Amino acid sequence: MPPLRSPLDLARALIRCPSVTPEEGGALALLERVLAEAGFAVHRPVFSEPGTPDIDNLYARIGSGGPCLLLAGHTDVVPPGEPGAWRHGPFEGAVSEGVLYGRGAVDMKGGLACLLAAALGFLDARGRGFPGSIAFLVTGDEEGPAVNGTVKLLRWARERGERFDHCILGEPTNPSRLGEMIKIGRRGSLTGKLTVHGRQGHVAYPHRAQNPIPGMLRLASSLIAEPLDGGTAHFDASNLEFTTIDVGNPATNVIPADARAVFNIRFNEGWTAGTLGAEIRRRLEAAAGSTVRFSLDLQPSNAPAFLTRPDAFVDLVAGAIEAETGLRPALSTTGGTSDARFIKDACPVVEFGLVGETMHQVDEQVPVADLDRLTAIYRRVLDAYFPA
Amino acid sequence: MPPLRSPLDLARALIRCPSVTPEEGGALALLERVLAEAGFAVHRPVFSEPGTPDIDNLYARIGSGGPCLLLAGHTDVVPPGEPGAWRHGPFEGAVSEGVLYGRGAVDMKGGLACLLAAALGFLDARGRGFPGSIAFLVTGDEEGPAVNGTVKLLRWARERGERFDHCILGEPTNPSRLGEMIKIGRRGSLTGKLTVHGRQGHVAYPHRAQNPIPGMLRLASSLIAEPLDGGTAHFDASNLEFTTIDVGNPATNVIPADARAVFNIRFNEGWTAGTLGAEIRRRLEAAAGSTVRFSLDLQPSNAPAFLTRPDAFVDLVAGAIEAETGLRPALSTTGGTSDARFIKDACPVVEFGLVGETMHQVDEQVPVADLDRLTAIYRRVLDAYFPA
Ligand SMILES: [Zn+2]
Ligand SMILES: [Zn+2]
Repeated sequence: MPPLRSPLDLARALIRCPSVTPEEGGALALLERVLAEAGFAVHRPVFSEPGTPDIDNLYARIGSGGPCLLLAGHTDVVPPGEPGAWRHGPFEGAVSEGVLYGRGAVDMKGGLACLLAAALGFLDARGRGFPGSIAFLVTGDEEGPAVNGTVKLLRWARERGERFDHCILGEPTNPSRLGEMIKIGRRGSLTGKLTVHGRQGHVAYPHRAQNPIPGMLRLASSLIAEPLDGGTAHFDASNLEFTTIDVGNPATNVIPADARAVFNIRFNEGWTAGTLGAEIRRRLEAAAGSTVRFSLDLQPSNAPAFLTRPDAFVDLVAGAIEAETGLRPALSTTGGTSDARFIKDACPVVEFGLVGETMHQVDEQVPVADLDRLTAIYRRVLDAYFPA
Repeated sequence: MPPLRSPLDLARALIRCPSVTPEEGGALALLERVLAEAGFAVHRPVFSEPGTPDIDNLYARIGSGGPCLLLAGHTDVVPPGEPGAWRHGPFEGAVSEGVLYGRGAVDMKGGLACLLAAALGFLDARGRGFPGSIAFLVTGDEEGPAVNGTVKLLRWARERGERFDHCILGEPTNPSRLGEMIKIGRRGSLTGKLTVHGRQGHVAYPHRAQNPIPGMLRLASSLIAEPLDGGTAHFDASNLEFTTIDVGNPATNVIPADARAVFNIRFNEGWTAGTLGAEIRRRLEAAAGSTVRFSLDLQPSNAPAFLTRPDAFVDLVAGAIEAETGLRPALSTTGGTSDARFIKDACPVVEFGLVGETMHQVDEQVPVADLDRLTAIYRRVLDAYFPA
């Protein structure tokens, strides 16, 4: 088997590994082989936790001195849904009219292939004696419960004495065009369950019952009546969405006993899960007064808001993007959570990858030209980070 | 088998027939035998409807002239629940310390036994030549779908040329003490299903989705913000209760597509189902404005509000109650619906029976003294209605 070098070859080979979370599917073994051949010291820690599947992970490093630039990502993918709905098989890696199709094409086997191709090219050009280290941190549990993935892998590395100076996470960050957007932070996520307690009874005798639904309408409305904040320099306003309200009473002549709602808040750096939970409770108590009985269950949150303050490293990445694409990328904190929320405790992290439009969808796809251009961007980052 | 004469014997015999809707359980056969022996012409029409069980009914009449006083009721009962939870078996008819226990003791085998005992006593005293007629209209489908019961039995009687001048329906009407309350009307019932339509999406990208829950909070609140009316001389204010709100979205990171709510309105004589439905739609449209998309599904209602205006017949019944109990009964329209809503189209109807406290519950029970006293009240009504 000839060595894999181009981002397209690497991406196709990865897509052909059916690594739907929690399956390794051969994807990490492939990375291991390529990285070891290039001179990386490769480790494959497997992490376990009762109640969740064992997960394969990969850590690799070349060089022992500083600075150490960490390249991070995941090989697991979300399920393909109905395979028959795809134009090309989700694990085929078909290329048609200059476009590569397959699950993970942009999220993020494609991005990982570009990181790898850039590192291989850099080592070819500079040899192993460059002043510093490059490390790969790749998990197989980003799309799943994320329990046996990046969190444990970072702890494992810290316990081995590994230190990182900066990180690029190759998640898809561009809404529609390569070069538009870097993510320099992420909003936090907090989920709460609200229950309003009443007393069951017959609709014809409401004075003998206490309907929890009017109380739920009042309390739920109180959480969305006023914005949580107006946003910050780098973050949009925090946003609360109710995801469900359920009573589950099939009898149209019965007043129910309880009503339950669930909400999720995506919050900015102005809040912690603690201060936000207190504000939610304050609003509910004000709306409830002495008449509505409720309970609030705030889920433990492992997703704080964080920001990598724009600095020389962010400038370096943005400059590489502009040099290659002509676009000055927006420094954004929008979108969902990612493993950057864990990496930020180890070192400053920025996220930049492919165009995310088709991620998690049928016919996930990436133009081959984007793979080449993203590889060139990453290569510029390496060249600038480790000046000759 | 000696003839059954006392209300206690009749009630016990009826309770021993396990006539949980739709089962006849021998209860109507028992009534048929007793009524036929007393000289009534008895009919046992069975009614059918696709999708519902066939139902046994009974119609009996003695006399052919006017006025005709109709005595109405039902022999079917609601299920006993866990029989082991009962102090005495639900179909045993046990008497303990002057109290008769059993499913139907008050709703309404007990009341039916009193109507029957009163009629038998009246006929014993006056013979068959009294000036007028007494008719029994008894269904086995009051607690169930009520499709093959009173509605069809009244139509059947009308088609036979049967005409009624007044009716006493023996449902339990007293909240806690025999003689407290006559029902001279019932509120109507209207059920509506409200759906608010949105667009599904990810909570991190709310601008790409449209959460239906805020719209549901707004629309549902608009239906309970202002009372529907202030009540009338004989009716409480109309009342709307939400019985359920459901979204059914288990994913805390997904904005759902739709939210559904069900409400039930108990309305007074100021409304018909039509005018009330129009008011509900008006409120929803005002709250929705141009931003909330909703649909409203009003269930066909067979439960209009009705009132038997207080007149000489109501006075006659109230006078009989007062003479026997010393209490002047309240003329009420409270509580749920009953078959009186159908009978009111045939003739003026008042409801008076036992104390309803234990109806539909475990250990349903009636003091034997109440059976005797209710029989005496009904007898006074017959004596006054057909003066010698
Ligand atoms: Zn991803
Ligand atoms: Zn009843």
